[in-house]
Amino acid sequence: MGRALVREPKVFLFDEPLSNLDAQLRVEMRTELKKLHSRLNATIVYVTHDQVEAMTLATKVVVMHGGVAQQIGMPQEIYDRPKNTFVAKFIGSPSMNLFQADCHFDDGALWLTVQNGATKSRLSMGPVQKANTDLNGKKVICGIRPEAIAKVSEGTERLDNTFNVEVAFIEPTGSDDLVVFQLGDSDVLARFDPNLCKSGERISVRLPPEKLLVYDVDSGELLF
Amino acid sequence: MGRALVREPKVFLFDEPLSNLDAQLRVEMRTELKKLHSRLNATIVYVTHDQVEAMTLATKVVVMHGGVAQQIGMPQEIYDRPKNTFVAKFIGSPSMNLFQADCHFDDGALWLTVQNGATKSRLSMGPVQKANTDLNGKKVICGIRPEAIAKVSEGTERLDNTFNVEVAFIEPTGSDDLVVFQLGDSDVLARFDPNLCKSGERISVRLPPEKLLVYDVDSGELLF
Repeated sequence: MGRALVREPKVFLFDEPLSNLDAQLRVEMRTELKKLHSRLNATIVYVTHDQVEAMTLATKVVVMHGGVAQQIGMPQEIYDRPKNTFVAKFIGSPSMNLFQADCHFDDGALWLTVQNGATKSRLSMGPVQKANTDLNGKKVICGIRPEAIAKVSEGTERLDNTFNVEVAFIEPTGSDDLVVFQLGDSDVLARFDPNLCKSGERISVRLPPEKLLVYDVDSGELLF
Repeated sequence: MGRALVREPKVFLFDEPLSNLDAQLRVEMRTELKKLHSRLNATIVYVTHDQVEAMTLATKVVVMHGGVAQQIGMPQEIYDRPKNTFVAKFIGSPSMNLFQADCHFDDGALWLTVQNGATKSRLSMGPVQKANTDLNGKKVICGIRPEAIAKVSEGTERLDNTFNVEVAFIEPTGSDDLVVFQLGDSDVLARFDPNLCKSGERISVRLPPEKLLVYDVDSGELLF
């Protein structure tokens, strides 16, 4: 990198420059690279498998898969609204939750039904811009980020999109608890503050309508 | 791992088994290992440089440094109260913030003074069990986790341990914004929800007394 810098090029090409460093040094060097970038005011094309590097360093991200650009956009845009299920799964750690649901339009609002054990659970997406009634009764893939799922404490009023679930297991990372439960046939992972619940406990969780994404079951393209 | 499993040993020794996998597969295999562990009910000694693996998989963690055990304990215990500054820096990503402060005891309560630019800022630790007046006026190292720092919105009442700081820069990870500001002579990193503030903006942050840790400046041992 030093050798490249002294030649004062207009464009840098970095190919996974931090991949051989240990975790702590990698985070420090990431910060240094970010500072360097703003000081040099040069264009840097930066190739990485590390999604966090892509998110934190880039002004624009191109997500590639099998040589094909999947999505081009600003980091937060790609994180919040991945254009297809590949990008949704690839960007973010832990990954976005994806599970099957049945789609229904009712008076301009979009509803998703999830078979939850013996019972069916209804998820509201709220009003949508253009209702696509062709999708009525069709299967779709529903996506939500782990940190978008909220634990609803008992005693609070019953909100929409709230489910009573059993905690299957918990992965504590120190800063957070990664809590896994079943919704429909899928394992869903939520990121909570530490020590909010225990393995085996029944808890209420809420999937906020504004945080839900809907993908086509065949093409994997973003629908809503 | 498969070859080890069929021999049904009483103790497994895993030496960084996941280090050659890419990020996504590593997370999946971590979950599989956790399930395997609870099914086999066998003792697993697991060597890793990956702090998240240590935190999520272990029932007991031994933090080693230069061949010497630094701390032995349950994962959350080690995360919440690291016994020395090495463990504090090593466990958790992004790392715990550590900065110098002057120590004072006043009526059984512990106060920390940070030189913040031209002004001095006082941090309260609240009442402490045993006041160590030998430390009066001495330098200590103060530690706080990035996720323990709270952004205080304007208009709310002025709480203790609240500072007005300028955001130096922001690393957005998608799920969170890692926000860097100066406190005393040190860069302090806080983990906020995305898009709460911008680079260059002045914001109010609070360092809750119950989340502060105090270390000896020479030995690096935990004092309070």
